[in-house]
Amino acid sequence: MRYEEIDTPAVVIHEDIMRENVKRMQDFCEKNGYRLRPHIKSHKIPEIAHLQMDQGAAGITCQKLGEAEVMIDHGIKDILIYYNIIGSKKLERLSGLCQKAKIALAIDSLDVAREISKALVNSRGEAGILIDCNTGYDRTGVNGPEEALELAKQLMALPQLHFLGLATFPFPSGARDWFASAARLFADAGIPIQTISAGGSGFPTLSNEPIPLVTELRTGTYVFNDRTCVLNGWASFDQCALRVLTTVVSVTNDIVIVDAGSKTLTSDIRKGMTGYGYIMEFPEAEIFQFSEEHGHVDVSRCSQKPKLGDVLTVIPNHACGTMNLHDEVLRLGNDEIVGRWTVAARGKVR
Amino acid sequence: MRYEEIDTPAVVIHEDIMRENVKRMQDFCEKNGYRLRPHIKSHKIPEIAHLQMDQGAAGITCQKLGEAEVMIDHGIKDILIYYNIIGSKKLERLSGLCQKAKIALAIDSLDVAREISKALVNSRGEAGILIDCNTGYDRTGVNGPEEALELAKQLMALPQLHFLGLATFPFPSGARDWFASAARLFADAGIPIQTISAGGSGFPTLSNEPIPLVTELRTGTYVFNDRTCVLNGWASFDQCALRVLTTVVSVTNDIVIVDAGSKTLTSDIRKGMTGYGYIMEFPEAEIFQFSEEHGHVDVSRCSQKPKLGDVLTVIPNHACGTMNLHDEVLRLGNDEIVGRWTVAARGKVR
Repeated sequence: MRYEEIDTPAVVIHEDIMRENVKRMQDFCEKNGYRLRPHIKSHKIPEIAHLQMDQGAAGITCQKLGEAEVMIDHGIKDILIYYNIIGSKKLERLSGLCQKAKIALAIDSLDVAREISKALVNSRGEAGILIDCNTGYDRTGVNGPEEALELAKQLMALPQLHFLGLATFPFPSGARDWFASAARLFADAGIPIQTISAGGSGFPTLSNEPIPLVTELRTGTYVFNDRTCVLNGWASFDQCALRVLTTVVSVTNDIVIVDAGSKTLTSDIRKGMTGYGYIMEFPEAEIFQFSEEHGHVDVSRCSQKPKLGDVLTVIPNHACGTMNLHDEVLRLGNDEIVGRWTVAARGKVR
Repeated sequence: MRYEEIDTPAVVIHEDIMRENVKRMQDFCEKNGYRLRPHIKSHKIPEIAHLQMDQGAAGITCQKLGEAEVMIDHGIKDILIYYNIIGSKKLERLSGLCQKAKIALAIDSLDVAREISKALVNSRGEAGILIDCNTGYDRTGVNGPEEALELAKQLMALPQLHFLGLATFPFPSGARDWFASAARLFADAGIPIQTISAGGSGFPTLSNEPIPLVTELRTGTYVFNDRTCVLNGWASFDQCALRVLTTVVSVTNDIVIVDAGSKTLTSDIRKGMTGYGYIMEFPEAEIFQFSEEHGHVDVSRCSQKPKLGDVLTVIPNHACGTMNLHDEVLRLGNDEIVGRWTVAARGKVR
């Protein structure tokens, strides 16, 4: 299919750009001595996970068991599930996964670890454990190095679990001191830390030198990049591989309406940001409002304005949220659609 | 399955509440002499569309061809597609639909009408046409009664199209005068208006008396209701049929983290609103921030606080956006899960 024949709205992945993004992050990690463990929440596509592994990734990161199940079914064998797994149904599924692949979990509480241990005793499975550390983002994680040490000691006493080290998301300015302090405490206690796992799309911009103690990087959005990455200075628009094609369906003076709204582009928006995407052909235009199936675009600042039926190319605010709305994406190579990928792990909320 | 056994996050539809909502809106329309044409974008489930039809709805409303295709495949035969259909692929699909069901379209431009007419000439199909009127919302629609009359005259000259009347979304305060003025113009021109179709979830609160000229109401969210409906005074929380069950997965002082984030509840938020949902068991709690798979809940104002592993019931900000994230929903009747519905028209963005 020729590019011009694509029906809209449609998610198009520019494969050359994506491969460059994957290679760049792999090179960055290798140069600095980090293992790369890409977060597949951004693409949810097994074929892209394999591409990341083929490029040198050490394994992948998932948040939900359902994502891990899809990836294992497609042959990925080394998975970190960065989530507190709670409840009998999930523990049963986790036990199943531990039979099929090398599974690690990042958790922040002894109660969670105890139940996982019990389930794995019953199923004779094993799992690596990272302690999820709150280094400043205040989402999940233990609240200080002492708490991390205490939890490590406790879970080392639990059968079927192997303590691997520490993990955090993202990597705020206080994280270096946090981990330095933890490393001293653990060394004094004689407990080796194999892994310190950092996360976040902005991580590569933190330092040109290897960041002390960090052994692994989990990052997701880099595979595509998006408007948030560009506004944060992490990428350029040319490095954005995921683009949404949308058609102008109505025109009124300084406002045009396109056929991509919140159900196509997500209403995800970061604090302080305005607008719901970047229109490549009309950089001065602003998608200022969303309906579910309409994007409301202010074109008052555009010298030439889009016309009814024009197809526009949007780089969305948030690639991960956008991917999660679509069953399939088109693969673009050499200005032609060369295939489709099913977003196989989309909607796996459990 | 017992209610307590539901794995989270999960969308649960309280069937009794939903049936009451459907009946209430049908009764409202019948009392006021409006035909009800429910917008299925809110549920995307053919079984619910049939329930609305069985209760007395005159047909349904869709925005995307893909939604209409699913509904026709499931036996719905009277559909208004409220969208400017543009492009050869879509016109071909529209032609197919016109062979299978009674199709009407709401459009706002002669260019769009011309191409539809051509396609239907080729396929020997027919479609009713409503003129989409901008009565103040400034999304799509012709910009005044004179423009509506002009467009009506032009499209009446086009083969295969039948002019039915006028439509608008939503129904702002200026809409009454707009339609009164249009009615006079059309009467003077000798062009009968069969239908004036109004939209919007808040419509029933506009007037206890029939609103002059309006013959049809398109509304969607009423089937479930959501936090936006409650904050707007259109419904009570007890009338919210769609609820998301979510588990507390991490606890730190005044913040708890639940396993429902933007990929479960949508980041849809209305202007002036704070928070991402209403937690029924903890009305003082606020979901103040979202990650993709985490809801960040401030419980500082709660006298009793949720504990690790507790299951909470969330009424989302936006039912339609939430439904669009899920492949299936659980049907709750008499405190038991009595079945599942597939969200068959989910993700039909084209």
